[in-house]
This record gives sequence, structure tokens and C-alpha cells, in this order.
Amino acid sequence: MNFLEERILKDAVVKAGNVLKVDSFLNHQIDIRLLDEIGKEFKERFKDKKINKILTIEASGIAIATAVARYFDVPIVFAKKSKSININGEIYHAEVESFTHNTVNKVVVSKQFLSEDDRILIIDDFLANGCAMQGLIKILNQANATIEGVGIVIEKGFQDGGKIIRNLGYKVESLAIIESMDDKTGEIVFGER
Amino acid sequence: MNFLEERILKDAVVKAGNVLKVDSFLNHQIDIRLLDEIGKEFKERFKDKKINKILTIEASGIAIATAVARYFDVPIVFAKKSKSININGEIYHAEVESFTHNTVNKVVVSKQFLSEDDRILIIDDFLANGCAMQGLIKILNQANATIEGVGIVIEKGFQDGGKIIRNLGYKVESLAIIESMDDKTGEIVFGER
Repeated sequence: MNFLEERILKDAVVKAGNVLKVDSFLNHQIDIRLLDEIGKEFKERFKDKKINKILTIEASGIAIATAVARYFDVPIVFAKKSKSININGEIYHAEVESFTHNTVNKVVVSKQFLSEDDRILIIDDFLANGCAMQGLIKILNQANATIEGVGIVIEKGFQDGGKIIRNLGYKVESLAIIESMDDKTGEIVFGER
Repeated sequence: MNFLEERILKDAVVKAGNVLKVDSFLNHQIDIRLLDEIGKEFKERFKDKKINKILTIEASGIAIATAVARYFDVPIVFAKKSKSININGEIYHAEVESFTHNTVNKVVVSKQFLSEDDRILIIDDFLANGCAMQGLIKILNQANATIEGVGIVIEKGFQDGGKIIRNLGYKVESLAIIESMDDKTGEIVFGER
């Protein structure tokens, strides 16, 4: 069991509807030392890749991407949900359904910050049904950027996102893969891919 | 002129309506080395304060808070815009008007993560009319937490936010204070407080 799986067993809470609350250390309050361990681990898992930029999506992906970017010493780009009046000019965009909020967001990245010369590591906190990830991949394909890999903190292995993204041929590294969880007993079972 | 003012002159773009676009290095694409310099500078400016937690607001505050939290070796809490179904139980909340998006957001923090024992450094990317900052202060007052200071990356000195927050008695440190800017000429004038 790795450091993240241990932390999940210690502090995560299983809620009805396949919700795993990691609010106390990852996506509302953030443990800065854990974040650094996560960054270091992704650097190790993608050390053979020539990565020049990290792509993530707001909001909770940003902290994780920051920690990863430090280890690679590369810039971050974060995709924004809904068009801001501060993003002018041309944008790449995709529609993304949010499992957590039951909404559909337009996800956008300014064309200035992604190009065919980029070799991208995509980072996100959760991979569940894969909608957000497919949106980011669609945006990277619009930019003709190279996707060097996908780094996920927590994958819900009982949902289809991981299978869909791996079937597209991408290297997906998830620091914790949850095979099953039970909100009645609080039990969480981890797996491998 | 400090490192941030130099970077603003080099890469920021002045747009009509008092909009300063720092998308290329701070809040869409993020320069990870600049981010580290920002974290180090806030540590220096608040080194005499006993800070046990950083509070910021999603989305673009998160990356900055992460860099600052590393130097203080303390956790981050980020306030969320609109109530998520993942935040259960009791919350602190405030209404915040967004200058950028012309919307009113409900800003929330779970009561689990702020208490009267906390000594908080508030971090945000921009201070303009001060609405977001007043929302965060309102939330911290609900929690009876101690506000040790406010760290701002870019303050729009020609708007009232800085004056309002300083008049409340808080120590506000802004790494760059813009006295005036002109979207016709691109000129940016910095000041001090």
C-alpha cells in the first residue's frame, strides 16, 4: 500500500452515490507535504517522458499540477470552466459533464498556450467516468499537441473512465485505484492496472 | 522595481475596462519558477507572524497559495464558489461579487477546516474592489479565526479594495500595486503603500 492509499484509508470518507470525500487533505483543505509527495511520485512515473508542460483543469486539479510542475520544472496550463471575459481571442474548447455538480461546462484553453510543439502531461485529482479527461484530450488534439501521459491522483476503477482513456492508447498512471467502496461500512478496496 | 513588477511590464497586457491580462504567467498559464519566487517573497514579508494555515479562493488563488504554503509548511484551505454536493454538513458562507465575470457567487468553506485556533494568512492573485477579500474575512470572522495578514500578488491601487482592507486594520502586502494603466498606450505605473 502506497502513501496515498494509506492516507485515503485514514482520512477519506465514503458517501452514498459513489462519492469519496477527500476534502480534509486534497480538494478543500490541502496537505502541503502530501501534495509534494504526489508531485515527486508523478515525476518518478513519467521520468522517461519528455514533458514540457502540464495541463490540468480548474479548480482542484490546480494544486496538484503545481506540485507536479515543480518536479518537472515546466509551466502549467489550466483549462477554465466557462468562457471568461478575460480570455480574449481564439480558444480551444470542449463540453464536459461534471459528475460532482450535475452540470455541463464548457472547458476552454486559450490557443496561445498550447501548440503542436507541446509534449503534455495531463494531471487531475479524480478519474471517474472520464468526461473531463476526454474534454482535455479533445482540446489537446485541436492543438495537435503530443500527449505524453495522464497522471491521476484517485481513479474510480469501478467506473469506465480509466478503461476509455487507456483504450485510446495513453499511458495512465493513477496513484490510487479504488475497485470498490461501501458507504455503509466505510470499506475501500484498492486495485492495480 | 521587483521581480513581479518587471514581469508585469514584460508580459502583462492592459485591456479596456481596467483589465490587466496576466494569463501568460499567472492565471491561465503559470510560470512555476515565478510562482516559487512569489511564495518565497510572501514568506519573507510575513516571517514575523505565527501562521498555521493559508486561506485562498478558487480558482486562480490556489496555485499561489500552494507556493506560499510550501514556504510556511502549513495546509491550505480554499474557499469554493457555489455549494458543491461534496461539501456536506455545516459551512461558513459569504456572497462575493466577481468583477471579472459580472456574477455574484456564494463562497463557502466547510466548518471542519477553520476554527478559532487558526492563525490565517489570506492569499489571492488580485485585489481590486475588495469584494472577494471581504467575503473571505467575513468567513474567517464567522470561524473566530485570527487573521495574521493578507498577501496579494497584484493590487489595483486605483480601486478601493486595498484601502478598505487596510482600514479594517489588517496588514496587507501586495507584491505589485498598479497606480494607473492605459489600454491605449499599454503604460503601467506602479506605486507603494
